[in-house]
Amino acid sequence: MDGAGLDRNAELIARHAATLEAAIDAVRTRRAWSPYSDSPSTKIHGADKPPAGKTAFEARLGTTIDLNQPGPTGATVGEEVSPYTGQPLGIRYAVHDPDALVAGAMRAMTGWRDTDFELRIALCLEMAHRLYDRNFEMAHAVMHVAGQSYTQAFSGSGPNALDRGVEALAYAAKAMRDVAPTADYHRPFGAEQVALRKTYTLVPRGVGLVICCASFPTWNAYPAMFASLATGNPVIVKPHPIAVLPMAIVVETCRQVLADHGFDPNLVTLAVDTLAEPVAGRFVDHPDVQIIDFTGSPRYGGHLERTVTGKLLFTETAGVNTIVVDSVADLDAVARAIARSSSLFSAQMCTSPQTVYIAPDLFEPLSAAIVEQVDAIAADPAQAAGIMGAIQGQVSLDVVAETRRSVEGLESVRVLREAAPYPHPQFPDARTLTPLVIAIEGGDRHDLYAAERFGPVLFLVRRPADEAVMEATWLAKTRGSISSYLYSTDEDFIDRSTPAYEAAGANLSINLTGAMWINFAAAYSDYHVTGLNPAGNACLADLAFVASRFRIVQRRRPIA
Amino acid sequence: MDGAGLDRNAELIARHAATLEAAIDAVRTRRAWSPYSDSPSTKIHGADKPPAGKTAFEARLGTTIDLNQPGPTGATVGEEVSPYTGQPLGIRYAVHDPDALVAGAMRAMTGWRDTDFELRIALCLEMAHRLYDRNFEMAHAVMHVAGQSYTQAFSGSGPNALDRGVEALAYAAKAMRDVAPTADYHRPFGAEQVALRKTYTLVPRGVGLVICCASFPTWNAYPAMFASLATGNPVIVKPHPIAVLPMAIVVETCRQVLADHGFDPNLVTLAVDTLAEPVAGRFVDHPDVQIIDFTGSPRYGGHLERTVTGKLLFTETAGVNTIVVDSVADLDAVARAIARSSSLFSAQMCTSPQTVYIAPDLFEPLSAAIVEQVDAIAADPAQAAGIMGAIQGQVSLDVVAETRRSVEGLESVRVLREAAPYPHPQFPDARTLTPLVIAIEGGDRHDLYAAERFGPVLFLVRRPADEAVMEATWLAKTRGSISSYLYSTDEDFIDRSTPAYEAAGANLSINLTGAMWINFAAAYSDYHVTGLNPAGNACLADLAFVASRFRIVQRRRPIA
Repeated sequence: MDGAGLDRNAELIARHAATLEAAIDAVRTRRAWSPYSDSPSTKIHGADKPPAGKTAFEARLGTTIDLNQPGPTGATVGEEVSPYTGQPLGIRYAVHDPDALVAGAMRAMTGWRDTDFELRIALCLEMAHRLYDRNFEMAHAVMHVAGQSYTQAFSGSGPNALDRGVEALAYAAKAMRDVAPTADYHRPFGAEQVALRKTYTLVPRGVGLVICCASFPTWNAYPAMFASLATGNPVIVKPHPIAVLPMAIVVETCRQVLADHGFDPNLVTLAVDTLAEPVAGRFVDHPDVQIIDFTGSPRYGGHLERTVTGKLLFTETAGVNTIVVDSVADLDAVARAIARSSSLFSAQMCTSPQTVYIAPDLFEPLSAAIVEQVDAIAADPAQAAGIMGAIQGQVSLDVVAETRRSVEGLESVRVLREAAPYPHPQFPDARTLTPLVIAIEGGDRHDLYAAERFGPVLFLVRRPADEAVMEATWLAKTRGSISSYLYSTDEDFIDRSTPAYEAAGANLSINLTGAMWINFAAAYSDYHVTGLNPAGNACLADLAFVASRFRIVQRRRPIA
Repeated sequence: MDGAGLDRNAELIARHAATLEAAIDAVRTRRAWSPYSDSPSTKIHGADKPPAGKTAFEARLGTTIDLNQPGPTGATVGEEVSPYTGQPLGIRYAVHDPDALVAGAMRAMTGWRDTDFELRIALCLEMAHRLYDRNFEMAHAVMHVAGQSYTQAFSGSGPNALDRGVEALAYAAKAMRDVAPTADYHRPFGAEQVALRKTYTLVPRGVGLVICCASFPTWNAYPAMFASLATGNPVIVKPHPIAVLPMAIVVETCRQVLADHGFDPNLVTLAVDTLAEPVAGRFVDHPDVQIIDFTGSPRYGGHLERTVTGKLLFTETAGVNTIVVDSVADLDAVARAIARSSSLFSAQMCTSPQTVYIAPDLFEPLSAAIVEQVDAIAADPAQAAGIMGAIQGQVSLDVVAETRRSVEGLESVRVLREAAPYPHPQFPDARTLTPLVIAIEGGDRHDLYAAERFGPVLFLVRRPADEAVMEATWLAKTRGSISSYLYSTDEDFIDRSTPAYEAAGANLSINLTGAMWINFAAAYSDYHVTGLNPAGNACLADLAFVASRFRIVQRRRPIA
């Protein structure tokens, strides 16, 4: 690298240093912090960016996206359909040979391995910065593949997701800075004073494969990508075939940053496939792929967990999130918190609650209040559009319909609220569905709620609270849980309940009501996934998420 | 715990605090440091301890050792035979039901999980302290199961091994201290100021299984045991059936420390078996066993690496360690370093070199000098006894004999030195063998030296140095290497060679001669095993060795 390149690299590190140090401080203190704003307000971003983002998104429609990667096959694929318009996006993505993508990544790795890790981190922070700059475009892209509402796509798939990526960079910096680059070693052996100079080199493992989910692609992808890149590993991003565009934008941006700074863009590539012919296995089995980050279905995630050996595997799949209500100080506030969290993105989030256990004396009034609150959201199309967004896939409509059929005529089971579309104010053809609410007032109905039902379904189960905690934590331990919730005014009950949640590896929110979505997980402050139950093995983010992505190779020689 | 217990715990933490902080400083600076002395000198330990240790060892012979663990089956096993006397030790070990040991460990885990991790670490430091105090007994135990010389058993299986354990404690402290126990979180959501108190609890994974090797049982066991115990996991130690006694002493000591401080001794138990009926698989497959630390053969280690999923697996197996000699400043010094490292414990160490590539112009003189140096050691029984010790198993004699037969009549292959026993000054029936030295001066003879031959066999291969580096690093990458060695006076050659070693994940010693054994690996300073080649996936010790052994479970609630 020439002198100008060195200056530019030093400048890049300096430019992002304050952000990195603040992120390191934030993960230490776990305080609220972000270098970004998660509001799309024009007061923050100016009047031009929102329409420019929309225009940039619309310019993508009907085009072919080719990122000029190694091994083009000449073929293109594209299966995205907007949940808001019901129309195909018409975007085709150039297909590249998996072996060629891996080979390109391996070629790029050598130079990347030898790059100062502080510079690698600064380049990742630059990628995050540019992605934040493109976030209005990203918001439309996420909306029209995942079905998130505009505001949620802007915040949850933008700054909130980038924060998880920056958080991973903070941990990567901590873990790598923990290794001394060199040391002098002096000790006597017999009569001789031995003096050695030792050098410790950080060496990446190999290619990192990032498999993204369809409903929230960026949120888990950023930390995985940045954790691998910062520690020296190239990354191949494999989006879900029905949600490619957001990750294509991400990969395009990362490649541009790399190229702009004189690095091989093939450190970050996009691998596309179709539902009929999935390609992930080709990468999973490739010997040069040494790290796999997976977000998605328990089916494929479980397959990876049962079969991948000799490689690093980080997973987030799904579970059965529960709420236990023992007692409440403010019934309406609790009902509102439950109704809103069940309505947010029509319960297509990994933190959405599915089963609410309610103490018998509260069952009637709280059930009624929850239904009333859901009805209130559903009845206000503007509010419903902002909260519920759209249903990403037909499969979730099927899940809800099948659930509705399966409870027909069951004893002690009542439908308190029928699922129904709401009319979206901007998109009359949007695939929408408000929550199905089912009361279970007796009997053992695990068959109904003890597995994830991916869609707007809420079970309200009448159950004494201590018994409910036992069942909720058993479900967490055996079926997985990412977020669990508890409401009680009885401190003794809370104290005796929390050990069970800890033992089940269930992150617990207690008595949360108010403006913050109870299922909001904040980077730098909230750990996401414990790794202690079937909901996944990876935590966003802790030292374990980064510390194994690089290894240490030493050499030593006598000091002259 | 009562007031006296609390005081005692605080005192224990305080008593070991300086050691822990010094260890943390040492792994940061990688300087030479140890809280122990690795010399058995009576000037350090006093005149009484050496004979008392010998007496304690001898009192074990012919007895039954029963550690009063859960699930005694009534049976006993014992297959240990001293490599020094050729006689069975006559020690029987009580057998305990594997399920009962796991159940006992799980019962013990709850209280251990809830114990302040600083106290857990202090208890581990107390265990190390007591083991150091029993180290003369340990030295005899290791001698008579593993065949190490008295001095090596004292140092390498004593303080040097305990140091690796304390090193793991330092990393465990760093990783756990990195997690804030609580945080207050304040941020606005809309018009509302949200204030949450968050609590982050460290939760262990489950039972840790520690499978020990026969030739150097304590060295890898201590870091594994302490890493798991410090992070809250109970430990079941499964020694090799022919090398049980050292680990029985370890487990006995750990259980005593636990009991003395009011903790459940079943946090550390011993599982014994026989060569004919191995029991490790029962533990490996048990769902409550969540961490496996394995040291031993590539065969079983590879089996674990290929089959274990959904659990943490740390392995150290073996590889082909190479020396490349390009050029030398002092031929005798290099010859001596090679001869000594090949003679140490008769090459039964994971860091022993097996294949020495020598540049053609140096081949004759260096080969001759190496043989001369080995001969000098072998010819001096006192020196041989201190360096070579004994051969642990008949299998190593077979390896050497088979190697000798296989080179008979091969073109360009010459036996430079025959393997032969040396007479041990104290133990006339000791199973000893001095190194077989074979010269390979032409042709492609990978079949001879490209796999580990576990015993005193040294191949000297005539090969130009650049070519030798290519082959040595290819062997490291494909067959594994724990320690690699390079000799050159040409800085350009060294500079162009080191990237190949880094890429192969091979730790490299350059131009090492003198009093320090070149295959000595110092805790706190030398990383051991990179995880980048087949010699194992675990590094002693780095953050990755500890960071995944615990998980983080959080809860959050509004600040009142």
